[in-house]
Amino acid sequence: MRYFHFCKLPGRVMGIRLLRLTSVVIVVLLLVAGALTALLPSIKDDKMPNLRREPKTLSQSALDSFTLIMQTYNRTDLLLKLLNHYQAIPHLHKVIVVWNNIGEKIPEEMWNSLGPHPVPVVFKVQTVNHMRNRLQNFPELETKAVLMMDDDTLVSAHDLAFAFSVWQQFPEHIVGFVPRKHISTPSGVYSYGSFELQNPGFGNGDQYSMVLIGAAFFHSRYLEDFQRQPEAVYALIDETQNCDDIAMNFLVAKHTGKPSGVFVKPVDIRNLEKDTNSGYSGMWHRAEHLLQRSYCVNKLVNIYDGMPLKYSNIMISQFGFPNYANHKNKL
Amino acid sequence: MRYFHFCKLPGRVMGIRLLRLTSVVIVVLLLVAGALTALLPSIKDDKMPNLRREPKTLSQSALDSFTLIMQTYNRTDLLLKLLNHYQAIPHLHKVIVVWNNIGEKIPEEMWNSLGPHPVPVVFKVQTVNHMRNRLQNFPELETKAVLMMDDDTLVSAHDLAFAFSVWQQFPEHIVGFVPRKHISTPSGVYSYGSFELQNPGFGNGDQYSMVLIGAAFFHSRYLEDFQRQPEAVYALIDETQNCDDIAMNFLVAKHTGKPSGVFVKPVDIRNLEKDTNSGYSGMWHRAEHLLQRSYCVNKLVNIYDGMPLKYSNIMISQFGFPNYANHKNKL
Repeated sequence: MRYFHFCKLPGRVMGIRLLRLTSVVIVVLLLVAGALTALLPSIKDDKMPNLRREPKTLSQSALDSFTLIMQTYNRTDLLLKLLNHYQAIPHLHKVIVVWNNIGEKIPEEMWNSLGPHPVPVVFKVQTVNHMRNRLQNFPELETKAVLMMDDDTLVSAHDLAFAFSVWQQFPEHIVGFVPRKHISTPSGVYSYGSFELQNPGFGNGDQYSMVLIGAAFFHSRYLEDFQRQPEAVYALIDETQNCDDIAMNFLVAKHTGKPSGVFVKPVDIRNLEKDTNSGYSGMWHRAEHLLQRSYCVNKLVNIYDGMPLKYSNIMISQFGFPNYANHKNKL
Repeated sequence: MRYFHFCKLPGRVMGIRLLRLTSVVIVVLLLVAGALTALLPSIKDDKMPNLRREPKTLSQSALDSFTLIMQTYNRTDLLLKLLNHYQAIPHLHKVIVVWNNIGEKIPEEMWNSLGPHPVPVVFKVQTVNHMRNRLQNFPELETKAVLMMDDDTLVSAHDLAFAFSVWQQFPEHIVGFVPRKHISTPSGVYSYGSFELQNPGFGNGDQYSMVLIGAAFFHSRYLEDFQRQPEAVYALIDETQNCDDIAMNFLVAKHTGKPSGVFVKPVDIRNLEKDTNSGYSGMWHRAEHLLQRSYCVNKLVNIYDGMPLKYSNIMISQFGFPNYANHKNKL
């Protein structure tokens, strides 16, 4: 076996001693570099909000960030105003705009001319103006979390950052800002509404059984699950152009066996409907809107062969925000 | 094989027909009784509060009810006032009074003479006046849940019923009404306090890392766990006559790897200190009280070889209570 030791390298060109010295220096430098690398601080692991945007691997992003899905119809001015707001929310990974303006060009040129933008924004052109277009399993969706917002709703960055942190603690629930409930009646027919309806409980406060997806975080797997629902569910949503959110709450409640939603009380949530130039003011102004939703609840109970929605009275707020002593009491 | 059919029974005494008729009637009655039993309504399974006290099996009680543990020293007048209030809280199974009035007779005669009482109350006579007496694993404790209250603190029935329902959803946490935090300082020394201390976060609201056990629900297993802590923990609590609650938060945080507590914002919590005839106003008035607690935090970090406490900013309130539209916003 040929024994090859660097000490025995031909040294006559530079001199044996100089060659040895150079080698030793190189080895020492490598060792020092190795030691420095080992001493670099590791990434902090606590739960406090990280407002700095650090470059991350895709898998890290997938867990720590969310995708905003915003469907839009006939309110492009509001859309663009809201995009300017939402594009800068902490932990946002990407925006998917579901373009329900059939036949109308997406504002991609204008969008690009006003770049650069903090995150990628994808415009998904639709072929029919359907309410449930936003519930597709978009291939562009890379994160575990989805933030779904109506195109006329502004929620503050603080509210969203907090609600996202709450979703991370309740990932199987719809964590959002708009609670609603169903109630039973003696005839067995259900009705849909908000706090103006009777309490479903014993006079001990109110309850909610749904959190609307027009301002909420939920797990992207529910978009996958939505693709596998009975045909009758799609038919119902298409017939009413309504109730996709009620259907999602049924889906989640059935999946978890628990209340579908967790309500986070918003500090600053605004409806910008009145601000649009289009004159279009949203589906919920239709006369039959609420009656339709009661109708949907009963139809969905038939389709799913039972009422899976469960009540909750948990209302979550952010400790010490905005008032640093908002938890203070006489004690 | 002898074939025995009731139709062939000797009928000559009563007459065969009469005997058959009687047998048929008996069988029909048995069938009807069986059918009725099968049709009895099953116990409702929803999460809405059950304010009616139904007789239950012990195992059902153990899950659906809690034991109040109240330690008392030198404030028997407050104790009795509070017992009248707490004995009637829904879902209460039993009260354990930890009697730190060494050498003084328990008011058992007076208690019995003013009976009957809604639940059993057990007076546990102590031999030394120690703060950690309340953290024994009492044999009388039958429920999974413990409600621990200081003997000068009044919390409304509504708050307790709600907080108990929250504990049932977070059984591994200390669910209570008094949040506190620790903060890190550049020197590595920790300090203890409430909202008046700096935020441990990024200026985005406050955080808490402890929920005090003097007004909180927690799992009875933590009393078992507390018996197996390092001796230095008991020595610390005995030395300071303080910090048993901080120690419990360390224990729970270490066990779960999550924030130890869940804070429920109380609607009606009162400190009755001023109402006592004894003139005794509680340990927390001692000049060194807060400094002691900072001292305890640092000692416990040494004992447990690390800081297990984690921050949370989740504040839970009851939806629609007391104001039925307390979740309402401009949307």
